[in-house]
Amino acid sequence: MLENIRVVLVGTSHPGNIGGAARAMKNMGLSQLVLVDPRDFPSEDAVARASGATDILDAAQVVATLEEALVGCRLVMGTSARDRHIPWPMLEPRECGGVACEQAQQGAQVALVFGREYAGLTNEELQRCHYHVHIPSDPAFSSLNLAAAVQVLAYEVRMAWLATEGRPARQSAVVDPDEEPVAVDELESFYRHLEQALVEIRFLDPAKPRHLMSRLRRLYGRSAVSRLEMNILRGILTETIKAARGEHPKQEKADV
Amino acid sequence: MLENIRVVLVGTSHPGNIGGAARAMKNMGLSQLVLVDPRDFPSEDAVARASGATDILDAAQVVATLEEALVGCRLVMGTSARDRHIPWPMLEPRECGGVACEQAQQGAQVALVFGREYAGLTNEELQRCHYHVHIPSDPAFSSLNLAAAVQVLAYEVRMAWLATEGRPARQSAVVDPDEEPVAVDELESFYRHLEQALVEIRFLDPAKPRHLMSRLRRLYGRSAVSRLEMNILRGILTETIKAARGEHPKQEKADV
Repeated sequence: MLENIRVVLVGTSHPGNIGGAARAMKNMGLSQLVLVDPRDFPSEDAVARASGATDILDAAQVVATLEEALVGCRLVMGTSARDRHIPWPMLEPRECGGVACEQAQQGAQVALVFGREYAGLTNEELQRCHYHVHIPSDPAFSSLNLAAAVQVLAYEVRMAWLATEGRPARQSAVVDPDEEPVAVDELESFYRHLEQALVEIRFLDPAKPRHLMSRLRRLYGRSAVSRLEMNILRGILTETIKAARGEHPKQEKADV
Repeated sequence: MLENIRVVLVGTSHPGNIGGAARAMKNMGLSQLVLVDPRDFPSEDAVARASGATDILDAAQVVATLEEALVGCRLVMGTSARDRHIPWPMLEPRECGGVACEQAQQGAQVALVFGREYAGLTNEELQRCHYHVHIPSDPAFSSLNLAAAVQVLAYEVRMAWLATEGRPARQSAVVDPDEEPVAVDELESFYRHLEQALVEIRFLDPAKPRHLMSRLRRLYGRSAVSRLEMNILRGILTETIKAARGEHPKQEKADV
């Protein structure tokens, strides 16, 4: 179950922190580490700080973009400072552990995403997350060490797991695949298609996109869109674009 | 209140861990650090890892014995591996945070005691503690980094404190009316508008509607669509219908 939960570190500068994160993960029973464009990896410093969790470093997947790191994930949670311009569904670490466990127990791939040591995650990266997680630190000194932040979330995941361990999986045993939420990469394709349609119908001006797409990402991101619903939405977009281009065969005008 | 809770590190070998512990403490609002016979302190490594929590290092008290470190304390809790020969009252980190807070609130001095990196606390030291605290790590890889262990307990202390004390209002305290979910009657108007648009783009055949609208109702019905999001969705529908009817003013075709 815990193997369904991956830790994604984005743009890490200090390899020691990668090692510290690997150790914290292994202590808490997590094993899947994905590194997005790390500055220095593999590294001796990472091995030293991992202190025996080298199997996690050896198996770590290194990718170029966050998008690649999230392939197949149905639930993505990213750590964030509290105040952002666009309010986003915000969880505390305890809630994050609970939600992650619940989803992983149902067989979903879950990602916990951590940003750069100094700059965190970009707004674009944060918009790929279903939820933001804020560790309630002292506002006067709020930035945790990266490995310490991984430790806190991994600890809450483990606590939630220990609380449910032995409990039978929820009664979603036989799930119709059409009813299961799509993975984030399918959501990303949908957003691209949606954006294209909005440009075609002249609702979105590519020169002045404002917050439109991020608003729509927030809406659909929290809705756990199923495969069947996604097929409907994609069908609507395809027909919208055809209609906007006047590509529909001529016919008497429908009288609605 | 939190100033009544001290962190005591016994026989620390690596000064980096002292710095990491200081940072974790300050992130969580703790300030009193006591070092029992540290191998190397003060140290550059401690300052580097403290990453700005140098005030805690500067104010740290260095003593020769655990006994001195505990002077004035009414409650002492020491971290420990699970299996010890002498059974002792054992707390989980969450209970530890709760008890520490409760006592500190009543004006008691409380100590959280952490042992050596490799050997932990001796039996004699553990017997000076009222409670032992075990961080529920994976038995197959159970030893946390010292600063990570401090992070976990300090986090639980802070969570307990926030639960009882001036908890910063969650972001939903003052709700922007634009962010509130719309009422059901507005959703119904939206569904009518949506249906009309789907007919216009010929995605929905009024003669054979099948389950399309009920599928879309289920999707949007569970999403708690906010007023702002609803305005966006209605705007998209209006432009979709205009585009389908060819009512947009002629213009060079957008190059998407």
